[in-house]
Amino acid sequence: MIIVLKPEATEAQIKHIVTKVKSIGLKPMISRGIERTIIGVIGEEDLLRVQPLEIFPGVEKVMPILAPYKLVSREFKPSDTVVQVDGLRVGGKRLVVMAGPCAVENFELLLSVAKQVKRAGASVLRGGAFKPRTSPYSFQGLGEEGLKFLAEAKKRTGLPVITELMDLRDLELVERHADIIQIGARNMQNFDLLKEVGRSKKPVLLKRGMAATVKDLLLSAEYILQNGNFNVILCERGIRTFETETRFTLDMNAIPVIKNLSHLPILVDPSHGTGRWGLVPPLAKAAVAAGADGLIIEVHPKPEEALSDGPQSMLPEKFSKLMVELKRVARAVGREL
Amino acid sequence: MIIVLKPEATEAQIKHIVTKVKSIGLKPMISRGIERTIIGVIGEEDLLRVQPLEIFPGVEKVMPILAPYKLVSREFKPSDTVVQVDGLRVGGKRLVVMAGPCAVENFELLLSVAKQVKRAGASVLRGGAFKPRTSPYSFQGLGEEGLKFLAEAKKRTGLPVITELMDLRDLELVERHADIIQIGARNMQNFDLLKEVGRSKKPVLLKRGMAATVKDLLLSAEYILQNGNFNVILCERGIRTFETETRFTLDMNAIPVIKNLSHLPILVDPSHGTGRWGLVPPLAKAAVAAGADGLIIEVHPKPEEALSDGPQSMLPEKFSKLMVELKRVARAVGREL
Amino acid sequence: MIIVLKPEATEAQIKHIVTKVKSIGLKPMISRGIERTIIGVIGEEDLLRVQPLEIFPGVEKVMPILAPYKLVSREFKPSDTVVQVDGLRVGGKRLVVMAGPCAVENFELLLSVAKQVKRAGASVLRGGAFKPRTSPYSFQGLGEEGLKFLAEAKKRTGLPVITELMDLRDLELVERHADIIQIGARNMQNFDLLKEVGRSKKPVLLKRGMAATVKDLLLSAEYILQNGNFNVILCERGIRTFETETRFTLDMNAIPVIKNLSHLPILVDPSHGTGRWGLVPPLAKAAVAAGADGLIIEVHPKPEEALSDGPQSMLPEKFSKLMVELKRVARAVGREL
Amino acid sequence: MIIVLKPEATEAQIKHIVTKVKSIGLKPMISRGIERTIIGVIGEEDLLRVQPLEIFPGVEKVMPILAPYKLVSREFKPSDTVVQVDGLRVGGKRLVVMAGPCAVENFELLLSVAKQVKRAGASVLRGGAFKPRTSPYSFQGLGEEGLKFLAEAKKRTGLPVITELMDLRDLELVERHADIIQIGARNMQNFDLLKEVGRSKKPVLLKRGMAATVKDLLLSAEYILQNGNFNVILCERGIRTFETETRFTLDMNAIPVIKNLSHLPILVDPSHGTGRWGLVPPLAKAAVAAGADGLIIEVHPKPEEALSDGPQSMLPEKFSKLMVELKRVARAVGREL
Repeated sequence: MIIVLKPEATEAQIKHIVTKVKSIGLKPMISRGIERTIIGVIGEEDLLRVQPLEIFPGVEKVMPILAPYKLVSREFKPSDTVVQVDGLRVGGKRLVVMAGPCAVENFELLLSVAKQVKRAGASVLRGGAFKPRTSPYSFQGLGEEGLKFLAEAKKRTGLPVITELMDLRDLELVERHADIIQIGARNMQNFDLLKEVGRSKKPVLLKRGMAATVKDLLLSAEYILQNGNFNVILCERGIRTFETETRFTLDMNAIPVIKNLSHLPILVDPSHGTGRWGLVPPLAKAAVAAGADGLIIEVHPKPEEALSDGPQSMLPEKFSKLMVELKRVARAVGREL
Repeated sequence: MIIVLKPEATEAQIKHIVTKVKSIGLKPMISRGIERTIIGVIGEEDLLRVQPLEIFPGVEKVMPILAPYKLVSREFKPSDTVVQVDGLRVGGKRLVVMAGPCAVENFELLLSVAKQVKRAGASVLRGGAFKPRTSPYSFQGLGEEGLKFLAEAKKRTGLPVITELMDLRDLELVERHADIIQIGARNMQNFDLLKEVGRSKKPVLLKRGMAATVKDLLLSAEYILQNGNFNVILCERGIRTFETETRFTLDMNAIPVIKNLSHLPILVDPSHGTGRWGLVPPLAKAAVAAGADGLIIEVHPKPEEALSDGPQSMLPEKFSKLMVELKRVARAVGREL
Repeated sequence: MIIVLKPEATEAQIKHIVTKVKSIGLKPMISRGIERTIIGVIGEEDLLRVQPLEIFPGVEKVMPILAPYKLVSREFKPSDTVVQVDGLRVGGKRLVVMAGPCAVENFELLLSVAKQVKRAGASVLRGGAFKPRTSPYSFQGLGEEGLKFLAEAKKRTGLPVITELMDLRDLELVERHADIIQIGARNMQNFDLLKEVGRSKKPVLLKRGMAATVKDLLLSAEYILQNGNFNVILCERGIRTFETETRFTLDMNAIPVIKNLSHLPILVDPSHGTGRWGLVPPLAKAAVAAGADGLIIEVHPKPEEALSDGPQSMLPEKFSKLMVELKRVARAVGREL
Repeated sequence: MIIVLKPEATEAQIKHIVTKVKSIGLKPMISRGIERTIIGVIGEEDLLRVQPLEIFPGVEKVMPILAPYKLVSREFKPSDTVVQVDGLRVGGKRLVVMAGPCAVENFELLLSVAKQVKRAGASVLRGGAFKPRTSPYSFQGLGEEGLKFLAEAKKRTGLPVITELMDLRDLELVERHADIIQIGARNMQNFDLLKEVGRSKKPVLLKRGMAATVKDLLLSAEYILQNGNFNVILCERGIRTFETETRFTLDMNAIPVIKNLSHLPILVDPSHGTGRWGLVPPLAKAAVAAGADGLIIEVHPKPEEALSDGPQSMLPEKFSKLMVELKRVARAVGREL
């Protein structure tokens, strides 16, 4: 931690800060420059991070040296984490594609999509039973019935399933029926929910919030790991910017940035990240080229009748075609699909 | 709803759309322009809003005519809503200032702050018992004990109390001890939580999410009203932008914008909206001048020792001075304090 | 300057950095912590700032201690700068309101507005002769004829005039006819233009770019001061965010932030900062309450016929009413108007 | 154009709007819905776009049907534009990579980089003679001497050269020495500069401004085409967002979005779009996978000594390696390099 003092800081103020630092058991080192005096603090930065040093008299600014997260960092664990899902490996050389309808609407449709995406090469079935909708007037999901449909679709196709958990009272239910618990963008900083899934044994896919920095995302993941669950898959799904041509702006830079900072696998959701099915193929290919460990894509046989996110859902045949192209891009960057 | 067709849209495609619109019970009106054909739809727009018309073949774009929210809109209720809190009126001519420490840390400190802010003219005591913290290593609040301290502080000072609800399992507890339930920025789209407080009888203060548009905020409020609770107070607390000098960018434009669109009262939180106590006074005065119905401000007698948000907490004496200045600004714009 | 090394940095790498720092004439101080070694550099930080130290082997990050600007900083000049415009003082206790049509359209209209805003208490007449328009199909301004109209309006009313300079080939022309040269938001980083007005003797009003941080704005102002012109007035006019209810988001936080960092006066443009005339009054009052030194407001007698920015132009009678209210707010915060 | 009226709009107000529309020679069609009356206007929307209809009494909002640009639109010209540069084709099946140092520093270095990037497969040499720098204390470029170095490097290597034009007084000079004129992000809305290069015969590479929407970018390109120069290459180089891990956020969504809206070729600049050389390879590959027509990349043999943008410059050997990988990705998506 570096504490930069104001030019006019007095000796009494410096002493006050030094006393505080020492009282926590850390060692301050004063360095008097021409324009500023700075105090470097040696020792466990975490002890100091929670202190509001910015407001100590005479302090101009405080600059942390270390990242605020630990367990998720590559410094803590240099090798890539591979999350095991029912025999499937997420984060290895082979890419993982999760596909399916935005919301579970009925069993026939779900099963039909499941079969089609499996044939095309997807290895996880996605589908929402509980839907976070901006408007209270939109379809809110089938709830428990949707979970049961997912479990049945798994039984019939062998595809593990991922579904979103919104309400921590539903945790047990979701754990029972799903293989991966999804935490949606709007709940990325629902800390009680993070703690609960941290106590679960199931793998968790954590989506980046639309206003979350990469650091915020990693701190939210830290909540899960710190509570004991190391099976976390991160997911970039677009951030909010001033651009209005697309619903969100997929932050492709975040892929290699996260790979540098963390050992956790990272997926990309080009369906939510663009909001338009026609943009999914180029962005899906870009994500693979940028180093993502996989994709999560919305597929619906009749987008015109989809109860949720129709505009960003691909037709199964278009998805199959995309998978063929993705295989080529994966090979071009040394991955498999 | 206006459906704009692509220049190359065929008659079959137009017929397909027209059939869909009629099947929902609405009346399409086709207008053939030189460069585009458009279909105007007359009738309840909500019925069409949930249809993914954007992806119907031949459609270029779909433009809604009406706002997606109803109960919160000024069109639904032209007169200002005044929320009653324990005899206090939020949204009337007299401004309401809620003040207190970010987190409840211990009873003595809470009581002392409560007395001081009351003396200065605050009419509600704020304090967090459950704290949403970006990092799992930060102080997470006292929980139920903190709620009891708040209730006791109310008993001794007469100030109604506001506190944040994060976990819907705590709703009953919070309802028992607090007069206003706060939904924080990070939970603005925690829809299950919104539904639950919608079923409560207690007034709710709903903070704008850091990536939420005004429309998103109003839709979240709609969840609460739609579930039966009309006692909602909105709160602008800063949005996320590229500027790094302040933690967030207070969106002052939002005050009159919301006043135009909605009948609900709106408060401003200059403490979170700036992240620096030195910026609270000018922004608090600006908020009052812009037409806010009140303020929520963090006050702490020893910010250096605050367990949460020290840098943005004002000293009680600085808060008292600010209240004097606020009174002048309030009078200058025809309000009282 | 603080140079933070990677955990795995070698002695050879440290030596390489130390040699570089010494070669520039600065003094490196190595501090070996438990988790990181850091190198503090004492001496003129500017010498090091232009070196790409981030990419030296073994470097994790580089953290500057000082602000990158000098002449505009309050550290360089602690007292407020008051810019003299034709006898008028911008930046003193008395607020300055600049008002007039967005574009100069014809002389009669300009003169009529000039008289009306003067009567209402404005002290500078604004009007664009050269108009920066997003679309090439929009009205581009009257050019030199517009400048002459402004000069003539000044002659008749006594109001000094401000107008935008877009093309540096027009500098002499603008200098001849105007009292304040405006640099628009889109040209805030047109560095050649900044250098040219830096060599001018005329006061310059520099508008913040829509994606410019406060630091960027101050660095652009630094270009002007560094070239010899210290008569710079800053202007906050809204930044680009994800919110779409208003054209831009007025960053009210920036007012006190800039007051802390710089000695230059700062004005607010609520017309461009909102894009809607109905929002101008509350935001103008907020700006004054937040500590702005004045306002620049668009006024047009027939907004329906305005060739530019009609939606954000106030009627003269509405402007007169606003001025009365602004006087009250100004007094409430210890200023005059 | 669709004009939506307020619920309380009177017949007199409707008549007033209708009269206005007719006076411009357009045909209004009134449609009275249950909740709103709307007026559709048939005919050339451009005539109405410049009218401030939003502020006509009784108007709630105005919604344009057509895009505000013409010549750059795919509707105007359905087939891809291929810009010819000295025999080279930009926008065809074969990707174009422009590479070289950020700034021209001296001839030897420039020539050496030119030879290396040519050998690696680059087909255009980039290098700045005039540098737009945020700080006045940064290196501002060699000016005319730098242009001569570029021309000489072209003579020796055969590589056409691209360089930035900042000051329109330098247009003739730049035209004489360079093959492509670059308009930088900070000048994307320097409309006088756009008009001037619109009158030039040289191809223009137009970079997206950091706060510019795709629509703004296309409108700026429209300025160039409208003045007679159809040889425009667009360039995505990152937009400003709240994320601080990278200097900018590359908007990869914009590639297919622009391909849909416009016939102009689009390049990506991963050097500026990330600000860190280590992120250039994954983002360059992503850009190609997303459908970009080429790349512009900063290469410097001694980034530690670069006078500008060292942190984002690649070493020549790293660039060569990247080119090999890019070839594979290009082939995977049906392109060549």
